[in-house]
Formats: sequence, C-alpha cells, structure tokens
Amino acid sequence: MYSLREVNPMLRGIRVSPQWALQRRSEQITALLQQGEQKPFKEVIDISSGDSHRTGIKPISFVRQVLSVCLYPELLHDDTLPVDVRQRAQRLLGECDGGSVGSYTDSCGLPHVQRSVAEFITGRDGGVPSYPHNIFISAGSQTALKVMLKLLVRGKGVSQTGVLTPQPCPHTLPMLLEEVGAVLVPYQLSEEQGWALEPGELHRALTASRGHCRPRALYISNPGIPTGHVQSRKSIEWVIQFAAEERLFLLVNEVYQDCVYGEGMEFMSYKRVLFEMGQQYSEMVELASFHSISNGIMGECGLRAGYMELVNVDPAVMVFAKTLLCTDINAPVIGQIALEIMVNPPRPGDPSHSKYTQSDGLEADVLYSQSLLDKEGVCVGAGCEQREDKYHIRLCVLTPSATLEKVLACLGSFHLHFLDQFSQHA
Amino acid sequence: MYSLREVNPMLRGIRVSPQWALQRRSEQITALLQQGEQKPFKEVIDISSGDSHRTGIKPISFVRQVLSVCLYPELLHDDTLPVDVRQRAQRLLGECDGGSVGSYTDSCGLPHVQRSVAEFITGRDGGVPSYPHNIFISAGSQTALKVMLKLLVRGKGVSQTGVLTPQPCPHTLPMLLEEVGAVLVPYQLSEEQGWALEPGELHRALTASRGHCRPRALYISNPGIPTGHVQSRKSIEWVIQFAAEERLFLLVNEVYQDCVYGEGMEFMSYKRVLFEMGQQYSEMVELASFHSISNGIMGECGLRAGYMELVNVDPAVMVFAKTLLCTDINAPVIGQIALEIMVNPPRPGDPSHSKYTQSDGLEADVLYSQSLLDKEGVCVGAGCEQREDKYHIRLCVLTPSATLEKVLACLGSFHLHFLDQFSQHA
Repeated sequence: MYSLREVNPMLRGIRVSPQWALQRRSEQITALLQQGEQKPFKEVIDISSGDSHRTGIKPISFVRQVLSVCLYPELLHDDTLPVDVRQRAQRLLGECDGGSVGSYTDSCGLPHVQRSVAEFITGRDGGVPSYPHNIFISAGSQTALKVMLKLLVRGKGVSQTGVLTPQPCPHTLPMLLEEVGAVLVPYQLSEEQGWALEPGELHRALTASRGHCRPRALYISNPGIPTGHVQSRKSIEWVIQFAAEERLFLLVNEVYQDCVYGEGMEFMSYKRVLFEMGQQYSEMVELASFHSISNGIMGECGLRAGYMELVNVDPAVMVFAKTLLCTDINAPVIGQIALEIMVNPPRPGDPSHSKYTQSDGLEADVLYSQSLLDKEGVCVGAGCEQREDKYHIRLCVLTPSATLEKVLACLGSFHLHFLDQFSQHA
Repeated sequence: MYSLREVNPMLRGIRVSPQWALQRRSEQITALLQQGEQKPFKEVIDISSGDSHRTGIKPISFVRQVLSVCLYPELLHDDTLPVDVRQRAQRLLGECDGGSVGSYTDSCGLPHVQRSVAEFITGRDGGVPSYPHNIFISAGSQTALKVMLKLLVRGKGVSQTGVLTPQPCPHTLPMLLEEVGAVLVPYQLSEEQGWALEPGELHRALTASRGHCRPRALYISNPGIPTGHVQSRKSIEWVIQFAAEERLFLLVNEVYQDCVYGEGMEFMSYKRVLFEMGQQYSEMVELASFHSISNGIMGECGLRAGYMELVNVDPAVMVFAKTLLCTDINAPVIGQIALEIMVNPPRPGDPSHSKYTQSDGLEADVLYSQSLLDKEGVCVGAGCEQREDKYHIRLCVLTPSATLEKVLACLGSFHLHFLDQFSQHA
C-alpha cells in the first residue's frame, strides 16, 4: 500500500558510521546513571569526536558576547560589556537586512563575511590573493563538501566518479560519498611514518580503481583527521603534481589549520603551495579548501558555519555551486557572525584582545571502544578501516587537561585488563 | 584539462528562481543609492518574500533574550532580564552537551526540543497524539523536505518519481525538485475560487502525468504559499481520500499555520483531519508535515530551524531519513532553541507573557516587478507560472503597517503608469 515502502535504490547502501552507534550507547549509559544505576564510573567522558565544548572546554567570551549582543541589541547599551564587543556587534548587525540576524542572507553568505574570509586567507598565505567571489559560506564544511561532490558526480559503472579517500578519514565521509553516489577509492596512510601520505600508495590506489570507476577527485585532510599528521611543503607539492598529472580535483579539508602544535611544525595551505609552484600549476589545478568554526580554537560545532574557497573552478560551474547552496537557503546567521570573528579576531590593543585566549585537538576497533565505554565510562572514537591487522582508537585532545589525565589513567588500566581478557583466546 | 569542466548531467537543468534575480537587482539598486545615485525613491522596500525582519518587523524579545543568555550564560546573573527568560535559558542549556550551544546535537535534534514539538502538536490537534520519535528537527523546513524527496526519488523515464505541485508554489520548490531528480507535475490552483485546490484539476494533472513519469507524492501548502488560501476540512478530507486511492505520499507545508486571519477561518492540520477520518485512513496514508521558525509570528529566517513530523512511515524508511539528516550534521542549536520557544511560548502568569505579542504574508510577472523595483524602489515577488493569460505579483504582508501603506500607495500610482505605458501597444 505504501508509496514509500522502499527508499531510493541509490541510497539503500547508506549506513551511519559506527561512531554514531557508540554515541547512542554513550547516551543510554548516561541515562541509566541518571536513573541511579550503579556502574564502576559515575559519568561518561565522551572524547570520541572533535566537540570540545561537550568535553568541557569553555567557549571564547568575545565570540559569545558579540553573538549575544547581535541577538539582543538592547545589550548595545550594556556598559558591563567591553566596548569592542559592542562596536563589532553594531557593525555586524549593520550588515544584516533590517538590522536583524533573523533575516535571510544571500545563499553564499553575508558579503561582509565573504570579504573578511578573503582577507584572512590572503594574510595567512603570505599575500597570495583571495577574492570574496570565490568564498562560499555554508552551514559547516561538510555542507560545502557535499555541494562539490554533487557537482563532480557523474557516469555509471567504470565511468562513475571515484574519490580517492584516505584511510583513516573523517568518520562522516564514507556516508557522504554514498549519499551523493560517488565511489570511495581508499588509499592507506602510513602509520609507520606518523600517518603520512605516501606517493606510492596513491599511485597504487589510483591504478587499482581503474576498471571499476573513474577517479575524478582526491580528498585530503591536512592536518589529518583523525591522525593529526601535518603535511610538509614537499609532500603537498608532490600531491599537487599528482593531481595535475591525473587531472584530479583537489578537495582539501583544512579545518584543523589552527591546531598545529609540534615543534618546527607549520601549517601550509594547499592554495599557497599551489600558487608558489608557478603558473604551470597555479592556473590549472582545481581546488576546494574547507574550513569551519566547529574545529580548532573556536569549537563552535552547534552554531553550524564554515566556508569553502574555490580555486581555478570554471565560472559556469561556480554558478551551479551557488545554486545548490540556494536549496539549503543560507548558513545560520549567528554561525556566519562567529565565522567573521574567527577570521578577524580582536587585535593587540583592543579591550578584548588579552582575553581572546587560545585553547588546546587520534583511532579504535568497535569492540574495544564499546568495552571501554561500558566499563570505564570513557567514549572514544571507533576503528579506522585500516589494514586488517591494525586496530586504532580515536580520541580528541581538545579536552581540559584534568579530563585528559583522567582518561589516560583509565585507558592505561583498561588496556591491560582488555589484553588480559582477550589474549587468553590466543 | 579540467576534471570539473562540466557539472553532473543530472544537475544541468537546475536554475535559480526569477525571485533571486530580482533580489540581486534590488541589492544593486540599494548599493547605487548608497553611492549617491539619484532615483525617484530614496530606498528599496523589499516585501518579495516572507522575511519579516528584513521589512522592519521587530523580533520577539523573549525569544532573543533567551537565545542571548544561552550564548552568553554570564547573563543568567543579569537581574534586568525577566526571571522566566533566565529560567528557560538555564533549562535549555542543561539539555546541551557540556552546557554549551556550541556542542553538536543528535542529527534529529535535541531530545527535549523533539518532546516539546510533540506536545505542541498534540495540543494543537485536539489530543491526536504526536510522538517525539516521529519528530525530525532540521535546519529549516526545506532541508527536511529535501530529505523526504531524496527518499521518494527512483526510476527513470516513465517510472521516474513525479511530485504533484501546485501552481503557484513556493519559489524555491521547482529548484529543489530539479536537484533531487523528481519530475514536477503541475496542478493549477483556482484563482476564481480564492486559489482553492480543485479535485477535478488534481485528477487531470495526475492523468496527464502518466506516460511520462510515475507520480508518487502530492505537495500541498496550507495555508497556501504564496496565495494565503486556507483549506477547509472538507477540502483536506478530499485530498486525503485522493492520496489514499492513488497511493500518494503527502508532503504538507504547514509553515504558515499561525497566520490565519480571515473571519471564521481556522487552521486544521492534515494530520488531525487524517486521524479524525478513521482507521481506514489514519493507519495507512503516509504524511510528512513541515513547520519552521522562519515563517509566521516568529520570522526568524536567519536562525535556520524547523521540524518535520512523519506519520505512517515505515520504521525502516525512518532510519534512512535520520541517516540523511546525519550528513547535514545537525540543525543550528540556536535555531533549535528558538523552535522550542515557538512551540512552548510563555504562558499566562509568566513575567514575559504579556510582552510576547503577536505580529502581522500575494504574485507578479517579472517585467512588472522589475519595473516597479526600478521606478519606485519596491521589491515584490515575481510571477507564479499560472495560465498564460494570467499574471500576478507576490508580496508579503508581514510588514509594518506604515510600510505597507506606503507600498500600496506606490503600487496604485505605478500600476496606472504601467498600464498606460504598455496598453499603448495594444
């Protein structure tokens, strides 16, 4: 009798990531604890994903103050709020139609926010220019990535679009590729080399994919998600050459660009490297770079905003990117304003500058993670689809240091018990 | 050389609505005025879409106060804010992971918001029960509609999913159908009968569509967008019978349910009527009803939140709906909180109740609208793809009364000049 007895056959293979199952279990255990059930732990510590506020990291006051004034402009007259907070809020409200964050914006975002993002990128990349018309504001980096994937998808069978995808990768990526109808072409990152990207492996993956799909794009996250690996300039140059030779569209997730802590380590954007390689590459290789307010220092996952910068994309194609963003209406305005603050934080001398402090950003087999959650109340991320003989857990270190110490202590004792329990079968 | 020289062939037909072109023109004219260009008007009045804040309607204080406290919890100690504002904010923050609106939520939204929505629907529908697990919180009604359309789409040629769509309809709907790959099957609303839905026309449209697609869903907006027509119970009963007989999934846009002003007029939800028609229908007809914070009294378009209630949908299919929402991560938390307030406003006796006041949503040919915009600075909505001999403009009456009076005066004089100019050719 049902018109929707069966779903769109193209979507039947889509599955939520094991990560979501773990998080649901985590919520169930929390509910049982609240109902008084006795467990060896009093609360669940969830550090499975990069959601720093969930783990107890506090939001940045300046950001929240500005947003709060934008929502309730009566606070413009509240002298207890810093003057730069009120000035910023007033300027940003002036950019909203009708002076309200409740009005729609252009589907690509507020023009002022696009300009601020372009200025931020130009400054970050040592003067390599960025233009507002190439900046697309979206409800998070994933929304923008979905738009680009939709545009790249075509063909059936051997001509169906394949996307070279690192293993491990962000846990939502396989689901997204399934939804848009792209083939996931896996390439393995090298654990032995700190999860670096190896040229030989990319070649192998590309060659192996031929005959069952047509690879049209290469997805990279730099710094690596969930590995934290930071690519060197040389490694990026090699990837760009590879993309140019194989005519691959580069989809570069750079959402953790502010979270590079290793000594001598430096974030280098793909766009900057591309432009510094000369015209042969800078005018040819197509690139989309993604960033968002959810990750890194700001950690505003719940506000939903990010941007995508397109490089060397045919203007006719960019029109379609904009049109697809139209069907999502626009990114939440409160998130857009937080994005503006991320790319344009208080400067030295501003009243709020000193308080605008910085905060602090790995893999698992499902059995291990579930057992750790059930026995210790610690929720970490699930496995990473690496080689069959390798298992990992992921945990986010954007966590208050006291919590992290507690987690590491739990992990230490749990790991010994786990090995003890399961090695008896060996 | 380009990997993305051409976009996905399935998307090549997608076009932005004429509405967007008018709005861009409106922005260009505003920019020229700001640069000092002389025009017969000093500012552009944009009443083309249901964006009440853009036209100058003020947001509801209680909503903005609660959101502002949720963003900056220091305000919990601000005695100048009403006590019910601070209590509501505290309760809602308690529902967010880590006590922050910056944390992710479940892809279906905060469980507390789902419960509040279900309680609101049960109250609205005279006790017909609504359950939280059937409520999906999304970034606006269109996001949820896109999820359902994606699930309904299948087949090629004569078996491709068709969606019966009213003419006129919301201006973003044709673009959305194009994006998901559904065939728009038009049915005309009867202008002579106040834009009512006529049984004969639905039958005609369905019959005419056979042979070039397979109609699987019927889209209705009630109250009508952009017509404002409010369906009678009898009319809704007839549509439900038609959907049952023809096995059509009902996609019901009910976002203007709070905006029924005509004497003796009453909003009646499709779900309520369905359940009051008895088991033969109430356990069989599949229905998705959409509502959002963008429309009606609240007018919070920029915050991006809404909900969808699913009725009689196979649980196996609901899992896919949830999974597709996962790839959008979650609706913005600030919007989710505004939604909670919409469905659960201050009650009599609460300090903010008296201040939680009510506020006060027609068609156009593109030439007329452009000319009106260029000559008078008034931006109304474009034509409605009605019969060839009929032209309309759309304008939103959710506008301050002073603005509306000014617009009507402009329209009066403009219309005479327009007729004068163009009837000379006749």
